[in-house]
Amino acid sequence: MSRNNKDEPVFERYRLSTNKKKIRIRDFDTRDKSCFPDRVEAEANAAADILAIAELQNRLYAEGKQALLIVLQATDTGGKDSTIRKVLGPINPQGVEVTSFKAPSSVELAHDYLWRIHQAVPAKGMIGVFNRSHYEDVLIVRVHNLAPRDKVEQRYDQINEFERHLAENDVTILKFFLHISKDEQKERLQARLDDPSKHWKFNPNDLKERKRWDEYEEAFELALSRCSTKHAPWFVIPADRKWYRNAVIARIIRRTLEAMDPQYPEDSFDASNIVID
Amino acid sequence: MSRNNKDEPVFERYRLSTNKKKIRIRDFDTRDKSCFPDRVEAEANAAADILAIAELQNRLYAEGKQALLIVLQATDTGGKDSTIRKVLGPINPQGVEVTSFKAPSSVELAHDYLWRIHQAVPAKGMIGVFNRSHYEDVLIVRVHNLAPRDKVEQRYDQINEFERHLAENDVTILKFFLHISKDEQKERLQARLDDPSKHWKFNPNDLKERKRWDEYEEAFELALSRCSTKHAPWFVIPADRKWYRNAVIARIIRRTLEAMDPQYPEDSFDASNIVID
Repeated sequence: MSRNNKDEPVFERYRLSTNKKKIRIRDFDTRDKSCFPDRVEAEANAAADILAIAELQNRLYAEGKQALLIVLQATDTGGKDSTIRKVLGPINPQGVEVTSFKAPSSVELAHDYLWRIHQAVPAKGMIGVFNRSHYEDVLIVRVHNLAPRDKVEQRYDQINEFERHLAENDVTILKFFLHISKDEQKERLQARLDDPSKHWKFNPNDLKERKRWDEYEEAFELALSRCSTKHAPWFVIPADRKWYRNAVIARIIRRTLEAMDPQYPEDSFDASNIVID
Repeated sequence: MSRNNKDEPVFERYRLSTNKKKIRIRDFDTRDKSCFPDRVEAEANAAADILAIAELQNRLYAEGKQALLIVLQATDTGGKDSTIRKVLGPINPQGVEVTSFKAPSSVELAHDYLWRIHQAVPAKGMIGVFNRSHYEDVLIVRVHNLAPRDKVEQRYDQINEFERHLAENDVTILKFFLHISKDEQKERLQARLDDPSKHWKFNPNDLKERKRWDEYEEAFELALSRCSTKHAPWFVIPADRKWYRNAVIARIIRRTLEAMDPQYPEDSFDASNIVID
């Protein structure tokens, strides 16, 4: 059954406009919970949505004609790993492919910045998840001046064209910015320090990046407003509350898969005529 | 805590000897349940083992120094997909990478048969699962004469050397042959025909392959006996009962990860000295 996503409040509320007007991230409330005000209900909704996603993913795989690409971006501690574990963990691992983009290797740097990205695009039938993505090439690269500014300025259009190419070739794209407040980041960093079993996740370098909070905010504002398109919308997800973040993302993924409406393929044989010796 | 796998009956019972003497697959009972005779207990054991695997996988990922490669082979309907879903489904998808090897592409065929396999070897910190593998190059290739016989004969040693190379480079290897009876396959094929939502999994070609049951059995006997090594053992898993298959495999994976004994890395910083602004 195909659904019209416009019926769904999470789309109305968190999908960025495609008018390319620069947004101000501070205008977005990281603790908004207007779509699922009650935590218990939100968790029940998320559980049902995740089950539905798992079933839809089976059909997507069986159909083998289209792919879903989910792009996750956030500031450090924004919750990318935990979103993947909670919302996409229960899906058949055979149908999901997570790619974590780290600092590019020397081979990757010897190619254009979309080269490694293109290789990781999910095959038909698959859900692909990018934990960080080509957007790093207009985020960290912009903030740290890792490429000339005029090169970076060209990238927004290049990214839009690349994503349009994918969309025109049967890849549905969802991009989530997990939006936390600076205070929430402080709490999460502190929690990593307080729990020795989480020390491996703590990188003292994260504190240096934290000092550039405003610069990252500006880079996100440019990336989100310039690259929210009809074929590859950005969603700004209030992410201070993990349960709310999960409920919203699960609902968006579910409705998107429903709209993709994958179908089991038609039989290439007449089952009633087959005898197994 | 490192464990000695020899304490564990599933290793004793289902790990093939490394003496390279040809086995007879018919000597192995596809309905054996001697390690977990009671279904309810087996399922409880598997659930606990799977939880332990998920925790060990976190540590493996945090450590980032070694990988686990799980190779799954079976005759059609043997249960590879369902094993992946049930035993490895609950693990953080970010730490598991499933590669399904289909008929090779023209680019793949233009390279040696291990070329595409090597590319899919899990990175340090990861659990990699091969749904089919390089063993197809001595199974279907042997049965259908897709390569000259003398070339196929060379491959067993080549595979052993390749797997030794991986093992010497921090990849622990487990190979599971999911062993079902010909009658069980008939039931599973029939079940696919009886359920329209499973028709997409039914391939009339499977019936042609079924007629070659004895030839496949012979090819498996050669592959399993020639390629069960200390560094990459084959396990013959009784797989007519899915719950038993899952319990045995979950136990073997758990004990193997325990023996790999991944450790959270040591702190590169003094947590007590860090202040977050």
